[in-house]
Amino acid sequence: MPSHTHARLPAESAMRSVPIPVGLPTHWYNFLPDLPAPLPPVRDEGTPSAAEIALQVRPRALLDQDRPTERRVPIPEAVADLLRRIGRPTPLHRARALEAELGTRAHIYLKREDVLPTGSFKLNSAVVQAYYAAQEGRTTLVTETGAGQWGMSVALAASLAGLDSEIFMVRCSLDQKPYRRHYMELLGATVRASPSPDTSFGRELLARSPGHPGSLGTAISDAIGHALDLGPKAAYLSGSGVPHVYLHQTLLGLEVQAQLAALDEPIGVPGRGDHLIACSGGGSNLCGLVGPFLGSLGDGSRDLRLLAAESSAAPRLTAGRYRYGRSDLAGLTPEVLGYSMGPDFVPPPVHTAGLRNHHSSAAVSLLRHEGLLDAVAVEEKRALEAGRLVLRTEGLLFAPETTHALAAAVEVAVRADETAADPVIVVLASGSGLLDLQSYATVLSGGAR
Amino acid sequence: MPSHTHARLPAESAMRSVPIPVGLPTHWYNFLPDLPAPLPPVRDEGTPSAAEIALQVRPRALLDQDRPTERRVPIPEAVADLLRRIGRPTPLHRARALEAELGTRAHIYLKREDVLPTGSFKLNSAVVQAYYAAQEGRTTLVTETGAGQWGMSVALAASLAGLDSEIFMVRCSLDQKPYRRHYMELLGATVRASPSPDTSFGRELLARSPGHPGSLGTAISDAIGHALDLGPKAAYLSGSGVPHVYLHQTLLGLEVQAQLAALDEPIGVPGRGDHLIACSGGGSNLCGLVGPFLGSLGDGSRDLRLLAAESSAAPRLTAGRYRYGRSDLAGLTPEVLGYSMGPDFVPPPVHTAGLRNHHSSAAVSLLRHEGLLDAVAVEEKRALEAGRLVLRTEGLLFAPETTHALAAAVEVAVRADETAADPVIVVLASGSGLLDLQSYATVLSGGAR
Repeated sequence: MPSHTHARLPAESAMRSVPIPVGLPTHWYNFLPDLPAPLPPVRDEGTPSAAEIALQVRPRALLDQDRPTERRVPIPEAVADLLRRIGRPTPLHRARALEAELGTRAHIYLKREDVLPTGSFKLNSAVVQAYYAAQEGRTTLVTETGAGQWGMSVALAASLAGLDSEIFMVRCSLDQKPYRRHYMELLGATVRASPSPDTSFGRELLARSPGHPGSLGTAISDAIGHALDLGPKAAYLSGSGVPHVYLHQTLLGLEVQAQLAALDEPIGVPGRGDHLIACSGGGSNLCGLVGPFLGSLGDGSRDLRLLAAESSAAPRLTAGRYRYGRSDLAGLTPEVLGYSMGPDFVPPPVHTAGLRNHHSSAAVSLLRHEGLLDAVAVEEKRALEAGRLVLRTEGLLFAPETTHALAAAVEVAVRADETAADPVIVVLASGSGLLDLQSYATVLSGGAR
Repeated sequence: MPSHTHARLPAESAMRSVPIPVGLPTHWYNFLPDLPAPLPPVRDEGTPSAAEIALQVRPRALLDQDRPTERRVPIPEAVADLLRRIGRPTPLHRARALEAELGTRAHIYLKREDVLPTGSFKLNSAVVQAYYAAQEGRTTLVTETGAGQWGMSVALAASLAGLDSEIFMVRCSLDQKPYRRHYMELLGATVRASPSPDTSFGRELLARSPGHPGSLGTAISDAIGHALDLGPKAAYLSGSGVPHVYLHQTLLGLEVQAQLAALDEPIGVPGRGDHLIACSGGGSNLCGLVGPFLGSLGDGSRDLRLLAAESSAAPRLTAGRYRYGRSDLAGLTPEVLGYSMGPDFVPPPVHTAGLRNHHSSAAVSLLRHEGLLDAVAVEEKRALEAGRLVLRTEGLLFAPETTHALAAAVEVAVRADETAADPVIVVLASGSGLLDLQSYATVLSGGAR
């Protein structure tokens, strides 16, 4: 077609050079063989058992990904297309202005998941799960959401895959965060408050406790129960806590490895105090970041500290007990061995809904129990102050959950001054804070610079 | 230092290949010589004159950039660093899912300014203006804002440059959009409602009209008056309408040219109906996109249609009169020749605050008057429906202003089916809609897919 040969554009303006970009990984990384010990067995004694329920409501491909046979799990080309479409790989940002403000020798890198279309790393797994659900002929995605980031991600993933979505959102969050509800509904999702009168679990709970504010435990129970009611057309998806979600999130660590290599910035240099830092609620951004590094810690080729930042409102890893427990209230999930605040724990009403879990996942807890994972509990106000500092220096506004990791990183970086080496600190910047401005304003009430 | 040589990371996971990236332009593009006629003279008969006021409140370097001597204006290296830091170049996204949904042969590209940290293209000029203000020893940035995007950008640019900022926000917008106010205040900005009791203009207006809801005209008057009161330490910045802002925004068109070239996608192929489309309020995203293409239209080397999408609530380009007028109420700016709804026009209270201007800028109006610029007035509901369609197909949520351009693009793309060729349509996706979810919800009230 002659018109097409007419005008290959010349470069009409000179352009500055660009840094070496990295591509999307070809495989996810199954880090289960790199854990310091096998995952403890679950307790699953219900009737029906949680395993039987999972076989009904979860896509089979995802259950298979809970126990991959190889370390390298290929990413199908169609999934790679989806991941590119949502903006992967995400940038690895060197926070030079923050370093200067702190007067630290540390090199601080932020892995910027806030740039994804839903403003949260949760989308990395949602699009994969939606893909497999659609492959298996399931037409409705069902899930729960606390703060709303996972719900937004499932609503978007469903829309991109041409599926329906039904989302149970913790009632008090739904009332506090109308923007997230609007987003899901704009995508065509059905959003219900949990506890919900539309499920048998919710009806019973509301009959006993009419004004129940809901919790992640009620929402998981509502969602699984509803998926069971819908039958084979439905797929129940989890946003965290289970191995296949961690597998999908290993893109985080894999991209960081490739990006640091492209920058010629080694990490894990012995004696230097290099760190990987992430906040920990259900553990998926933490495991996604550190998982691909576990092998090199096991074989001693790296010296790297792994640090989980948790909320002081639910300090499971620093003050919880290692015991069996489960995440839902109705008993539809198995009991796993993990650090726990106990099943009756009610966290104070902090704004950081993503870190209010009462029970830690098996993988995170095992890393902690075996001494590979450090943990620090951060108070919300201190976290949001760190978030404000990063906004003012770097121009980037992160979610309250992320700011817990930022506060931990600031502490590590300041301490690093006392040593001779220049440590590398990588922080998983899990999400954007644009929809959390009300929380910032409420907690910090304006404060001067 | 031996530790640094220890471990250059091997590429630990295979990575897929990446598309050719483009760098940041080395120059802005001064398109004034490429306009079809000289810009008409302004009327400036006040005492003091608007020109004298500008000499006091505007950084000199910016006034010089209103009349550059060359077409290519070098971007200082320090400014280039800032622009890279905020995430430039931004992606050029091929909207293949939208194309498929429309069943169009057109290739639709979205220039994604929503990924900037403030979620708006406005930041491209704010960081430059803050740089020159700081260079000249000014310590306080003063400006007005309607919807809040420009105010957010100035607050962030001030913080990154270590300056203070004082922002006058239209009172009714301030009340409707608390998130944008929180963002500015989190950055340390002083935010005042306009009309403001802290300026002589505002005091007089409030005395006459105590419940005045404010407008862009009142806010400009408040801001310039306040900058005059503060004296030489202050710099008054504009977000649109003046040539130096358009110059800064030519990064948009320059990056698009380089990105299309890297994709081997020619634009301006004769007879094919290629389009550049942007919404038009003050005209800065429109001029920034089309400006670098004007030379090739003048010399006939391209066949390209330029289309402005305006709000049907303030349809200056399609229904206004070509006349002299000004943007502020106090008479502190010059009168310029442009398409206007007249000085007494009060637009209906639409959610799209960025397109409610009553008077078009000289450059946009000249392009229209000389027949180079097409225009279409879009109703808000139709615009937000197009925004919802793009969210559901592409997964990207854009600002109400942007959705006017999206609606225009959809119309062009659907019409393109009737022709034989595959036109290229570039839409300037000026901003993110995350903070506008309430507007989407109110206007669309849920509606099914």
